[in-house]
Amino acid sequence: MSSVYAYSTRDIKFNLKEWLPLEQIFTYAKFNGYYSIDDLDMMIDQVNKIAADVLGTAGDEMEEFGVKFENGKATVHPSYAKIFKYIQENGWGTSNLEDTEGVLPEILQCAVYEMFQASCPSMRAHALTTGAAHLIQEFGSEELKQKFLPKMFDGTWSGTMCLTEATAGTDVGDILSKAYPTNDPRIYKIKGSKQFITCGDGDFSDNIIHLYLARIEGAAAGTKGISLFVVPKYWVNDDGSLEDNDVVTTALEHKMGLHAQPTAALACGDNDNTRGWLLGDPPGPDGVSKGMSQMFQMMNEERKGTGLQALSVAANAYWNAKNYCLERLQGRSPSDPKGPRVPIIYHDDVKRMLMLNKATLEACRAMIYKAYYYQDVFHNDPDSDRRARAGARADILTPICKAYPSDEAWNLISESIQAYGGYGYCEDYPAAQAARDVKIYSIWEGTNFVQAQDLINRKWSMNNGESFADFLKEIEEFITVNLSVKGFEKEFANLAEALSSYREIMGAMAEYKANKEMSYYRVLARLILTATGQLYGGYLLLDQALIAQRKADELGPEHFDYNFYYGKVLSARYYIRNVVPNMVYITRLVKDGDDTVSIAPIEIFEY
Amino acid sequence: MSSVYAYSTRDIKFNLKEWLPLEQIFTYAKFNGYYSIDDLDMMIDQVNKIAADVLGTAGDEMEEFGVKFENGKATVHPSYAKIFKYIQENGWGTSNLEDTEGVLPEILQCAVYEMFQASCPSMRAHALTTGAAHLIQEFGSEELKQKFLPKMFDGTWSGTMCLTEATAGTDVGDILSKAYPTNDPRIYKIKGSKQFITCGDGDFSDNIIHLYLARIEGAAAGTKGISLFVVPKYWVNDDGSLEDNDVVTTALEHKMGLHAQPTAALACGDNDNTRGWLLGDPPGPDGVSKGMSQMFQMMNEERKGTGLQALSVAANAYWNAKNYCLERLQGRSPSDPKGPRVPIIYHDDVKRMLMLNKATLEACRAMIYKAYYYQDVFHNDPDSDRRARAGARADILTPICKAYPSDEAWNLISESIQAYGGYGYCEDYPAAQAARDVKIYSIWEGTNFVQAQDLINRKWSMNNGESFADFLKEIEEFITVNLSVKGFEKEFANLAEALSSYREIMGAMAEYKANKEMSYYRVLARLILTATGQLYGGYLLLDQALIAQRKADELGPEHFDYNFYYGKVLSARYYIRNVVPNMVYITRLVKDGDDTVSIAPIEIFEY
Repeated sequence: MSSVYAYSTRDIKFNLKEWLPLEQIFTYAKFNGYYSIDDLDMMIDQVNKIAADVLGTAGDEMEEFGVKFENGKATVHPSYAKIFKYIQENGWGTSNLEDTEGVLPEILQCAVYEMFQASCPSMRAHALTTGAAHLIQEFGSEELKQKFLPKMFDGTWSGTMCLTEATAGTDVGDILSKAYPTNDPRIYKIKGSKQFITCGDGDFSDNIIHLYLARIEGAAAGTKGISLFVVPKYWVNDDGSLEDNDVVTTALEHKMGLHAQPTAALACGDNDNTRGWLLGDPPGPDGVSKGMSQMFQMMNEERKGTGLQALSVAANAYWNAKNYCLERLQGRSPSDPKGPRVPIIYHDDVKRMLMLNKATLEACRAMIYKAYYYQDVFHNDPDSDRRARAGARADILTPICKAYPSDEAWNLISESIQAYGGYGYCEDYPAAQAARDVKIYSIWEGTNFVQAQDLINRKWSMNNGESFADFLKEIEEFITVNLSVKGFEKEFANLAEALSSYREIMGAMAEYKANKEMSYYRVLARLILTATGQLYGGYLLLDQALIAQRKADELGPEHFDYNFYYGKVLSARYYIRNVVPNMVYITRLVKDGDDTVSIAPIEIFEY
Repeated sequence: MSSVYAYSTRDIKFNLKEWLPLEQIFTYAKFNGYYSIDDLDMMIDQVNKIAADVLGTAGDEMEEFGVKFENGKATVHPSYAKIFKYIQENGWGTSNLEDTEGVLPEILQCAVYEMFQASCPSMRAHALTTGAAHLIQEFGSEELKQKFLPKMFDGTWSGTMCLTEATAGTDVGDILSKAYPTNDPRIYKIKGSKQFITCGDGDFSDNIIHLYLARIEGAAAGTKGISLFVVPKYWVNDDGSLEDNDVVTTALEHKMGLHAQPTAALACGDNDNTRGWLLGDPPGPDGVSKGMSQMFQMMNEERKGTGLQALSVAANAYWNAKNYCLERLQGRSPSDPKGPRVPIIYHDDVKRMLMLNKATLEACRAMIYKAYYYQDVFHNDPDSDRRARAGARADILTPICKAYPSDEAWNLISESIQAYGGYGYCEDYPAAQAARDVKIYSIWEGTNFVQAQDLINRKWSMNNGESFADFLKEIEEFITVNLSVKGFEKEFANLAEALSSYREIMGAMAEYKANKEMSYYRVLARLILTATGQLYGGYLLLDQALIAQRKADELGPEHFDYNFYYGKVLSARYYIRNVVPNMVYITRLVKDGDDTVSIAPIEIFEY
């Protein structure tokens, strides 16, 4: 009973129906006539039911079975294949970008994936297949699309992204995988090995299509010389028949969590017989290739997806903890110390842990959903200015949505475990597994340090800094307009202070740059990313709280939905009064400019 | 290779030989002539070798084997028994408090246990046996001492503490275990069940002596009616023969970590045949009994011990991560971007994660060692005033030493995992297991909320608040005397600010109390405990840094030990400039008095 899907969909519906302007998305040509706000409840309820009944039922068996690797063969639990195919066959997974009807907007895909991942965190094959298929669709020839996409769309084959090698992770420019031209200019021989390949092997799929980074002989050093190849586990002949492609699984990783998810180490070309299709053009005469920037299309999808996974695992742990705390009797109410024992949810410190979870997770959900909303605008809006602005917003939000939730989730789940007491440490309850599952999200798809670097070195300054200034200006205008809304004075004052703190942070960093003190861009990066998440999360929650307060006033306390809206107001209040002020501490550290880390000789760590 | 003992002993030696006045301890009658400062290096080196060679070698096998429960029989890995007996037989474990020679001072026992626990976190049988034996020694009759102690001292039998029941954990006053008088006034029939009993069963010991809380029929409700019993797994007849005592193991817990440690659920008296010896007197005519306060002798030992375990597990993860970061090549130096790849320890964000670990762990070590030092003074000093003052200090430090390290360890190990990158998430490296092992320490022996309550409800006010005022005055005097020591001006300014923040916290809390707003004592408690740890940790590290700076100046940078001392200075600087300022944030929250948590209706957590 350690895997229990305990999700509530109410906040998801609020984000989609009452907060984000989905009417606007639904007017876009691709979606027009297929979706309406009125249908969303039904759709979310259905997905929630699938999450519970299809994905959520085999959790314990899958966790116990894990993944097996014997005689070179990787085996997953039978339910893994069943769930993968169910998702793909029923239109919840990989979609054809060229379909003109029935395609899910990304914001709805986001909601679907949130629930699916909460109920089955080890299932990632559908999302990776989506990313891989879209790379082929975007950059592949007609021939490649014909060869691969139909079977990737229908769940027969799956996909992966192959970046990391045993000796090159964050530093992907140093990969050793090589590609050698053959007589056919479309096809290269591949030699190299890859590590940590999620869904890289397993009997859930008839063929695994690896999107594989390698350097063509003679190409430039570093990331700019890397090309992207389609390297299937089984080579696909023109008649559709398959043959061995010398892609050998050498091991499955023994991970702390996500035990049902196969994570493979692969060796390609050990028998000189691995072939890959080049995606796009070979390197130019300067040795420069586009593989890395192509891969970033998938990577950026996966980064937001990673934040969403962290949110879903932590939220499911929170709701499980809440259910336990409603049932578990311990102690008495301070107002009736001789009275009956009460469920522990009535104890203030337990409530505090749940409140911190609820508020922070709602902030994470708001920022992630907003990012996916921007994606839909970016890809579909007829107005090019709106597209550009939304694209910039999505770019800014990508590192924040990846790192902030995946950093916070570790602490939030710790508090969920703590709320259970000793039972939280037992694998019979879901919180322990949630902690084990969630830890990878701060590491993969670019560590959270890489995300922080992306934020302060690229996103702050993209388009001459105008996009980020615009991002902050939206918060400023929100404050200016609402500063004196009754009942929220303290919250707006805190948010205004947070915004001005954030500008102090940017000012201090600009000064370090002017003084060429660049080590601060490394030492302070992760703190600044956290501060960015706190500021933006506070803004979004308060934006939601204004809507919620109006609804609560309108409905009155007797209405069945009143406590949801009141809870939204309390989430904003708690977050802005207890979490957002942490920015003041971060601002102080940024301005202090302590250089202990950069001057420390490495010898001191011996002790 | 997931269990690797990678400890450095240098800071332990510094604490014992250069910082704490152990000469004073060694003059006490019990130790005089047996110990000298000059012998400490040899002793620590020997213990370190035992930790590596005896305790640290079977880690992977023990982790993999776990604990088994089949046909009612609990089995541990054979090495578990071997290690337990080794510790007990060689004088490193349970000692006879009445021995007049050769007994280890508690401060040295602390150092020994730190290394043992780092190398084998699942081994806890020796410490629990110590606690149980000392309860019998303190409160038992001569007969009981004769019956139990010799075999508990020599490693034949082990001990446990039995408080928690399935329906009563934190709320120990609600236990259901009952004791019924027999014809023999020393002996009671016991009926009840216990949960989460560490080392509660297993074939590492010939008999398990449970120190068991139960309520004698008719005694008062709540904690004050509870008595303490010696309930052996096998009843010990007067001739020394053993017979079944109807203590049945019903399950072993499936824990997130500490897999080699057997944690049992026990049922006593199901066949009406469990007997226990009462420790001390039966309840008086008012139904009041001393069981709970007796148990607190063991509990207080275990609380400090728990902080020490958290420190040791996190420190071992840190040093393992450091070793990995010294070897793992990734990326290039910012000062030589076209140069060779460098070990990742040279990257500032990796250094930052290690620095945070090093500094925080040294702060934890300092506060825990100081607490054990006070214990020795309290138990042995000929001067009653010094004894009383040291006892009060040890009392104040107990909740801090239990909770602060066990809270921080979770985040510190997260950063150790992060320093490894993807390998940190693999169980082939030690950091993942360290995270799984460490989580329980914030829960058992009184959750960290219970510790925080102890601090602000009891320790702040004990002896009319004089003891705590004295505790703060020591910090104040330290600041006054050293405020202008060259090179530490910024650090002393920060510490002075922290102390004044802390007084603001106490002032705000006093005001809440005066206004009867007691919910703040629950909602803010854990934050305040953290602030207390930060203040005290900052003070102790700075105290150590002044010594270290003098030594560094004396030795000069070419001396082999220079980097240790310089590292101590940097630890203090990093901690005081980056961690201690977090208190300013906590102070703000305390003074803000946000009441969101206490007013929140529990219905809002449905969403």
